[in-house]
This record gives sequence, structure tokens and C-alpha cells, in this order.
Amino acid sequence: MKATGLIVEYNPFHNGHMYHIEESKKATDADCIIAVMSGSFLQRGEPAIIDKYHRTKAAIKSGIDIVLELPYVYAVQNSDIFAHGAVHILNEIGVSSICFGSESGNISPFLSSYETFKNNENIYNLALKQVLADGKSFPEASRAAYEQINLTTKEIDLAKPNNILGFSYVRAILDNELPIDPITIKRTKNNYHDESITSNIASATSIRKLLIEHNELSATVKQTIPKETVIQLQSYNRMASFWHTWELYFPILHYRAMTMPLEELGMIHGIDEGLEHRIKRTAKQATSFQQWVTLIKTKRYTWTRIQRLFVHLLTNTKKSEITSIIDQPSVPYVRVLGLTNTGKNYLNMKKKKMEVPIFSNIKRDAPLMLRIEERASNAYYSILPPEARIQAIKQEYKGPIIH
Amino acid sequence: MKATGLIVEYNPFHNGHMYHIEESKKATDADCIIAVMSGSFLQRGEPAIIDKYHRTKAAIKSGIDIVLELPYVYAVQNSDIFAHGAVHILNEIGVSSICFGSESGNISPFLSSYETFKNNENIYNLALKQVLADGKSFPEASRAAYEQINLTTKEIDLAKPNNILGFSYVRAILDNELPIDPITIKRTKNNYHDESITSNIASATSIRKLLIEHNELSATVKQTIPKETVIQLQSYNRMASFWHTWELYFPILHYRAMTMPLEELGMIHGIDEGLEHRIKRTAKQATSFQQWVTLIKTKRYTWTRIQRLFVHLLTNTKKSEITSIIDQPSVPYVRVLGLTNTGKNYLNMKKKKMEVPIFSNIKRDAPLMLRIEERASNAYYSILPPEARIQAIKQEYKGPIIH
Repeated sequence: MKATGLIVEYNPFHNGHMYHIEESKKATDADCIIAVMSGSFLQRGEPAIIDKYHRTKAAIKSGIDIVLELPYVYAVQNSDIFAHGAVHILNEIGVSSICFGSESGNISPFLSSYETFKNNENIYNLALKQVLADGKSFPEASRAAYEQINLTTKEIDLAKPNNILGFSYVRAILDNELPIDPITIKRTKNNYHDESITSNIASATSIRKLLIEHNELSATVKQTIPKETVIQLQSYNRMASFWHTWELYFPILHYRAMTMPLEELGMIHGIDEGLEHRIKRTAKQATSFQQWVTLIKTKRYTWTRIQRLFVHLLTNTKKSEITSIIDQPSVPYVRVLGLTNTGKNYLNMKKKKMEVPIFSNIKRDAPLMLRIEERASNAYYSILPPEARIQAIKQEYKGPIIH
Repeated sequence: MKATGLIVEYNPFHNGHMYHIEESKKATDADCIIAVMSGSFLQRGEPAIIDKYHRTKAAIKSGIDIVLELPYVYAVQNSDIFAHGAVHILNEIGVSSICFGSESGNISPFLSSYETFKNNENIYNLALKQVLADGKSFPEASRAAYEQINLTTKEIDLAKPNNILGFSYVRAILDNELPIDPITIKRTKNNYHDESITSNIASATSIRKLLIEHNELSATVKQTIPKETVIQLQSYNRMASFWHTWELYFPILHYRAMTMPLEELGMIHGIDEGLEHRIKRTAKQATSFQQWVTLIKTKRYTWTRIQRLFVHLLTNTKKSEITSIIDQPSVPYVRVLGLTNTGKNYLNMKKKKMEVPIFSNIKRDAPLMLRIEERASNAYYSILPPEARIQAIKQEYKGPIIH
């Protein structure tokens, strides 16, 4: 059996994701489609709109054969660490290719860009360091560093966020000499950050915006998502009585900052360069999440970076915990959130050859990475009504979702 | 000018407290009545029903000349530490007597009991240690130890909570050879823990119960409290939209326990003997504060003890912080929350002779004890609506309340 891997967030699963699955099948001729998906919190430092279990259900009923969890320690990070975690998980599970969307749908410019990159890696690293030291944000600095080695004017423009992410996957595969083919398919027209919906393919951002604004599933939203996503969104909202947004966490997040000594705040992952002082100072005035981030934001500290460090504050994740894990050459386990019969056959065939254990639920004496995951989920569910919270958390200790 | 000191919580200030002030004036012939009062959280491990500023206003308009803050590190503790802090603050401010209520209203049995106690202190300490090791609670153990040296059958019965507290004051004064007269007046008939109201003197417990049940001031409650307390209770409820109860803190408290590793939980003051495991385990089922405490409670871990450690968890107070302060022979400062003109004259006269600074508001570079206080207040106010919270917290940085 041949498997291809997708790296996803499914927040929520929509028609564009469906298209991605279909095109990946065509491009790779795979028998099994494996998605590695962010869990409770997402790469841009946000809580997922519905939990990972409901997102997993939507995915395995819409074409994915196995959903693996992208662990928290990789998921809420910049694109390099995110890619490192995702690619290594797919490698441990034995995919022969990874298929991602890009503007051109052509892999060769990614490969030639990688050549250029490797030949100029020292210049890139030096430029990155300098621009960061000048007070620029990480995305700006990496763009400037790519420019320095002419990677923004070559066949793929590495100033574009989607290309940066794709290039991170290619780098993670080639840097580690993994036996995986990087493959890319052409993205449909919707733009990652588009906020308006004009067809049956819309960005997840625009879909979330509509969902949150009305706390209900409008006809406009329904035309952009498969039926199974409708069911899962409704089912989650019935349990929780809402879809997750940052504002719902504001009281707890704010309480945390107001009751932590500066030294303790400075131990949280992402709170660097004395940012704890700025967080403390602005906390005194903040009356909402949006307003608080606006008060902290500067050129150097982007909205995304602040959101990410707020996730780590909410989940009580310390620098020391994260670095001890992500500095490892690969991942300590692979966690299955859900699978189809095809997925099950694939796993049965692969599991004896795997070098790391497969987990589904959280057991006693779980490794640190899984304990951090558990804490992140506890934080994620903390805003639910008590009875719903108990039910939701129980999912972590059950087997995978089977379709 | 002659001052007498009262040790109080005023949760809320009621007619019995009024009586205490009048009788103390008669018994001591003092020109100035100084109360040292618990702040945001109380000795039995509960949030105060309204904040310390509103309680201070009620007190200085009803006969108290100076309200001093009993710092958090002493306030939420067993009777010995509570008494140690309160007595030392009153000593620093120069009172010539401390006047407390007791069943008999006669000081001599307290003094003779102290004699007996000192002559048998080793036996007492040994008995205390043994009974604690047998798995009994602190109140039970100290009762048993007093029994061992016959202090429960002498003139005052040291098995009674009120007598234990009074005896702690006497011990703190005499152990430290402070130039303070311990004086006691006869308590009115209401019992500390009484829950029903039958006259215009009722226990604070029964008053709180009625207030919380209906979230309004009934005629029954009004007959038991001075007019100024009515005004302050109403004013606070208008701002916060509630009176504080533990249940309102349950989501935040629960979130804390669910996102702390065991080792971190074990660093919190009051979480001893592996209790962190029990807290974590029960947290998974808990749907309310009351239910959670019930799940944790055992013979050894009394309701009060659990409430106290939950306060420390809520305020993020660590063992190391507390012990570094309460092991000191006296207090590092005295904080004035409010005062009358008489109080002001008294302070002007005394302040040059004082050995520790007088603070009112929290300033930059505040000592650790005051920073812990600030954190406790931040935690206390965390459940308020954002705008009200900002206003409430500002009080900490203003001068004292003047009447």
C-alpha cells in the first residue's frame, strides 16, 4: 500500500480541503491518504473553532484515511518548527510522498530554490540574524534573508506565506534526507486570508468569520463545506454552546498574567526579550483580547507572535519543556486521532516496522510531549460548561475515532 | 493618645462588631480604636463578600479610627500564624492593648492557661506532633494537645474555636514579651457559626448566607447591620453585579489545577503530603466548588484547610514565598487602608517612633509581602466585569480612605 501525507489544520474542513484530497490522490496514486493535523491550538496562535475530535470526524468521512495529531509543541510555532514536526510524523508512519498546495502547482522551482538555498545557507542565516537584531519580526526577517540570496525573484516567490510554508516542508524533507517525495498541486483560487465568500470554495478564515459573527450556520457557509462538516459544527456547538474564539479565553488568560510574578511569566515559551514587562503593563488596561493584543503589538512583535505566546501562557507551557522536545532529531511517538478501514489496514501493515510507538489515547506515564498535549487540551476545554467539559476531556482517554 | 487594637475580618461589618467597638472603648479607655483586618481573602480560606475598601469604609464610619491590612501571608493561615501577624502589626503601630471577645469576658483564665501552657510546652508540642502524624487535622491535633496538658478542663475550654483564637493572641503577646495588655470582653450571644438570624445581633456567617441566597439585602439582614454596611454592600454589588463567593471562582481555580504539572502544584503553599495527586484526580470529576472540596475532604484534610490551599492556588502563592516572610520576627511594614481624623492625629504622633514604614498604596519596588498582596487582589478581582475590574484594582494604588 502506498500512502501520501497532507499537512493540515481543518479549521474547519471545507470544500477546498476536499479538492486538495482529490487532487493529491490523482497526483500520487496513493491508496491511503494520511493527514497530520494541528490539535486544540493552531499555527497562527488560535484555539481551533471546534475540537480535534469533531474535526477528525469530518475529515475521515470526507476522504482522509488516517488523521494523526500534530503535537502542540510543533503546532503552535513558526513555519520551520511546524514543518519539522509534521514531516517527521509523516515519515515515521511511512508515507512515500507529501502533497501540498502552491500557487504554481509545480515542484521543480521548489527543488531548484532548495539548491540555491543550500549553496547560500550561511548568507541566509547571517542575514536572518541581522534583520532580527534590527528589530524586525520573524516573517519579515526571513523574507529579507530570502531576498538576500535572490529567492524572492526566482521561479517561486518566497515572500508569499503559502510558498514559505511549502518551502519549509521541502527543506524539512531534503535537509533530513527522508525517503519522501515532495509533491505540489495547484491551489484553487481562494486566498489564505480572504475574508469574503464568493463561491463554493472559500478560505477557512472567511468561513470562521461568518460562523462566529452569527453563532449559526448560514446558507452561505453551508455552500462552502461538506455535509459532514455541517454535522460536526452543529454537534460541537450543541455540546459547548459556542464555537471557540480567543475572546472566550480572555478572562482566564488575563487572570494568568495578573497573578504571575515577572520571573515566572518570563519562563513561558515565546515570552522573550523582556516582553513580560509589556504584557504586565498592558494587562492593567485590557478589557478584551483584541484590545490587549493591539496594546502589545509593535513592528517586532506581530499579531501572530503575540497570539502564539498567549496560547503558551494559557496552556502553561514553558521554554524548557518545548526545547527539550523539539531539539530531538525526530518525534517520540505518533498519535492516531481517527481512521477508516483503509487506514486500519495500512497501520496493521506498517506498525511492526515503525521505530516509534503508535498511541491513540493518553495513558499513565505518557511521555512529556503527550502530557503537554493533555494540558493544552485541558486549557482548550476549560471554558466549556462543567458537564460538557467532563465529556469533552474524556475523548482524550478513549481509542481513535473509526469510520 | 491611647490606642487599643482589634483583630477583625468584618465580612461584613455588623451590629455585633459595633458592640465590640463600644465595649472595647469602655474596657480600655482608649482614644483611638485600631482594627487590623484581613484583606481580599479570609482566615477560613474564603474570598471576602465585598472588597477590603468597601469593608474599610463601613468600619471607619461605624467607630473604627484606623483600619490596617492584615497581609495575605498571615490572613489565610491557621490561628497561630494569623495571630502572630495581627499582633505584630498592632505592636508596630503602638497600641497599648488588644481587646478580643470571649465567652467569659475574663482575662485571668487566659493568663493562667498561658502559665500552664509554658510550663508544659514540650509536652504540648510532642502531643501535637504525634496526633498530626496519626492523620488528624490541625484543629483536632491542637485540641488533643491542649487536652494532654489539661487546658480543656481548666477555666477556659481550649476545645472551643473562639477561645483558641483568643488564646493565640495572648500567646503571641506574651511569647514575644510585647508591651501590650491583652483584654477580653464578653461576647454577645450569637455563635460564630450560627446560620439563623433571630435578633439584631447575628453572626457574619448567617448574614452572608442570606445575602448570597437572594443576591439582595432583605429586611432581616438590614436589622443586623449598621446603615453604612447597607450602603457599602449595595455600592459594591452595583459595581461588581454580585457579592463574592467561592463558586464564582470555580472555573478559574479548576483551570489552574488542570493546567499545572504535579510538581508545580506541589509548590503551592498548603499543598503538602502528596495532596496534589488527590487534587488532580478529583478535578476530572468536579463540576462545582462545593462538590470538589467534598471529593477531596478526609478526616485529615478539613474543609477549611482545603479552602485555604485553594486560595493559595488561586493567588499562585508558593511555599517558598510565604515561609521567607512569616519566619521573620516581625512585619516589614504596616499598611493603612482607611482612617478618621482621630486616626490621622494618632498616626502623626506615632509615625516618627515607628520601626517599620507605613504604606497605604502599592508603589514600585514594593517589598515581597506587598507584591503578594497585589497578586492576591488581582486574583480576587479577576471575576469582575472588565471595566469594573480596572476601577477596583485602581484602589490599590490610591491613598487610604479618609472619613
